[in-house]
Amino acid sequence: MKTIRLNEIEKIKMAMAGAERVYKQVPVSKKDGAPSFCFRVFTIEPGGHTPYHTHGFEHLNYVISGQGVLVDEHETMPPIAAGDFAIVLPGERHQFRNSSENSPFVIICAVPNEYE
Amino acid sequence: MKTIRLNEIEKIKMAMAGAERVYKQVPVSKKDGAPSFCFRVFTIEPGGHTPYHTHGFEHLNYVISGQGVLVDEHETMPPIAAGDFAIVLPGERHQFRNSSENSPFVIICAVPNEYE
Repeated sequence: MKTIRLNEIEKIKMAMAGAERVYKQVPVSKKDGAPSFCFRVFTIEPGGHTPYHTHGFEHLNYVISGQGVLVDEHETMPPIAAGDFAIVLPGERHQFRNSSENSPFVIICAVPNEYE
Repeated sequence: MKTIRLNEIEKIKMAMAGAERVYKQVPVSKKDGAPSFCFRVFTIEPGGHTPYHTHGFEHLNYVISGQGVLVDEHETMPPIAAGDFAIVLPGERHQFRNSSENSPFVIICAVPNEYE
């Protein structure tokens, strides 16, 4: 059993192609004994976005703060903001974009451990 | 792909023995196609707590709002508040208690699908 403060977790700028102004933290993971899935946090600065990509695993999301869009292939998704949830299934092409000019868009992105 | 507003999700009072003033919502689950794990949200009203119990699965937690304590067998855990994370491993006896007199203590509790 363990409690974790996010500001004590190392924050690393994402080097992945297509990621712009995105920082990653992993507050809860297999290093803490998590048997099957983990919580990552992405901070997307104004003007920033995650890669527009697909992958073979799902993610479950919660918006901690800010506002943005979960872009799909049709660009028809509604805006999301602090307090909202989302799910992206395996194989669905997607991207998270910050839609604010001033505030970071901070999201939990929970994935199976092997994709931490 | 789907986005979800928490206030559109059915909220049910927990009938489980040992749960006091606790309400459950399931914003993201296998019903949305989640292959392996799900996000539940528990709202623990002032004076309320989850059961003091153990189970054979883990949960990963995030505090959406309020303040409380994740009680362990030694009652030595630090208080947690909005923005904090926690993990409870399989077999660890635990309880979430609201420690505020006025505000609900609202947490995400993510578990493998079979324990939704």
